[in-house]
Amino acid sequence: MNDQMIIGVMGGGQASAANIQTAYELGTLIARQGWILLNGGRNAGIMDASARGAQDHGGITIGILPDDTTRRVSRHIQIPILTGMGDARNYINVLTSHFVVACPGGTGTISEIALALKNKRRVILLSFDTGGIFDDYRSKGLLFTAATPEEVIKIIKDLMA
Amino acid sequence: MNDQMIIGVMGGGQASAANIQTAYELGTLIARQGWILLNGGRNAGIMDASARGAQDHGGITIGILPDDTTRRVSRHIQIPILTGMGDARNYINVLTSHFVVACPGGTGTISEIALALKNKRRVILLSFDTGGIFDDYRSKGLLFTAATPEEVIKIIKDLMA
Amino acid sequence: MNDQMIIGVMGGGQASAANIQTAYELGTLIARQGWILLNGGRNAGIMDASARGAQDHGGITIGILPDDTTRRVSRHIQIPILTGMGDARNYINVLTSHFVVACPGGTGTISEIALALKNKRRVILLSFDTGGIFDDYRSKGLLFTAATPEEVIKIIKDLMA
Amino acid sequence: MNDQMIIGVMGGGQASAANIQTAYELGTLIARQGWILLNGGRNAGIMDASARGAQDHGGITIGILPDDTTRRVSRHIQIPILTGMGDARNYINVLTSHFVVACPGGTGTISEIALALKNKRRVILLSFDTGGIFDDYRSKGLLFTAATPEEVIKIIKDLMA
Repeated sequence: MNDQMIIGVMGGGQASAANIQTAYELGTLIARQGWILLNGGRNAGIMDASARGAQDHGGITIGILPDDTTRRVSRHIQIPILTGMGDARNYINVLTSHFVVACPGGTGTISEIALALKNKRRVILLSFDTGGIFDDYRSKGLLFTAATPEEVIKIIKDLMA
Repeated sequence: MNDQMIIGVMGGGQASAANIQTAYELGTLIARQGWILLNGGRNAGIMDASARGAQDHGGITIGILPDDTTRRVSRHIQIPILTGMGDARNYINVLTSHFVVACPGGTGTISEIALALKNKRRVILLSFDTGGIFDDYRSKGLLFTAATPEEVIKIIKDLMA
Repeated sequence: MNDQMIIGVMGGGQASAANIQTAYELGTLIARQGWILLNGGRNAGIMDASARGAQDHGGITIGILPDDTTRRVSRHIQIPILTGMGDARNYINVLTSHFVVACPGGTGTISEIALALKNKRRVILLSFDTGGIFDDYRSKGLLFTAATPEEVIKIIKDLMA
Repeated sequence: MNDQMIIGVMGGGQASAANIQTAYELGTLIARQGWILLNGGRNAGIMDASARGAQDHGGITIGILPDDTTRRVSRHIQIPILTGMGDARNYINVLTSHFVVACPGGTGTISEIALALKNKRRVILLSFDTGGIFDDYRSKGLLFTAATPEEVIKIIKDLMA
């Protein structure tokens, strides 16, 4: 049965040490719940750190790569999906995720938040301030804010209950 | 020679009467410049209005459809490109455009602005307030603001000069 | 109104002199009918030759590129659509075409014939022997064979009648 | 480390009882090797049967769905990847697979064989006669023929050695 939770973790290919640490902790907690972690799969920033956290704690990690080769895959991704479709793969990232967690990032991450909300995936912003641009989606029950990885997990579990 | 300008016009499938009128005028001015108008191709909102403006004034109009059928194509689109790829087609919209004009819209339009900037396409916001979220791109010379269709054309011509 | 015919011309990036000549003639005849020519857009083989034939005779030419840049676009393509999606763009080629003409090619062309038939687009093989692999589709009225560009045009016109 | 083998199993959504049985056995043997099984993910034909065989024997199963919902997912797919891209997902199927096994199928399967060979993935035809159309790839060491699931496994292991 495909009833296992898939949590998409989005965020920048470049990230501060603090955000790297937070992404690692988020990956850790996702694995401890028995959930699958999905991200963009590259060996950089939030992608690499969140996959490392999940893999270090026995979780399944899936990376949806923009590339048609494995050259830039994080070594903490157990299952690299090669799309060869560049940023069009962002659409796959959000469709496949039951919940999307957005860590601080740039335009790639913003495009994923936008596509997730458009496709009715619930998005949790983790220490990522996107201004008021998506605020309409808070009252629709699609957009949430968390300050820590623990809060992310709590929000997801409350929504699943 | 493929040296003809392609201007991408993004914006909501739902739009106010004022925004519909502005999109029609923008399409008109794009056609008068001899430029090709590209948009998301559907028979709704900014897409339909901008295509109508361009077609009424002899311009070529291209629609990059999310669908695998022509059922929702605007009748003002001369060349409907059927992608069958849902919102993944937003990536094609921005890659193909020499300049992207963003009229007021929702998450689809925001995803297109984000993907355009990520892929170094210049974006002109036409009466669309996105908060400060993309402000870094102003100083990089990729993001511009216009209050009228005439201003959009002037910005593009200045950048081409 | 988007009632203009779009004819997809598929075929190899590498092609014999005879096949190049045939593709040029096919492009010529498509343009003379007032039809739009669509192909894979690259500056090579059947793509370049068919676009050249159409453009030399006043036709609109559209190229659906696998790339995210214009570096490999044929200069005979008026409208290059940049997909950035590699061979996934083959699906767009066939969905967008009212009829698909398959000139001799390799695995790329075969994938396009297969996807066209799967999506109920009519395919005309022009001097391209694909063995018996697609023969079921002849009796379904989806697969046709032509020996010359003139025959291709005749088959299409008969089917439109 | 992402050094786990991913075997793509392609084949028709409609299949004979014998082919269903063979696909189940192939899935079984793939799981027993500790390899990941990837397919098109739908609850039909070769896809469903091969996933069932793998899952019954403890294997990881990944489905690359054409859809943007889980409505047609096989319940034997542990990880459904929703692409929302229709047949364009065939490109992802073959890029992601280290080896592609083609069971009897129709135009979808043929498009996958063609795209796999074009992208230098090795293809093993399992009781699937494609005529001579791909024969050039035998001498290039990319195309192989097997009569049983056991033979498929032997060919893959020989190629890995």
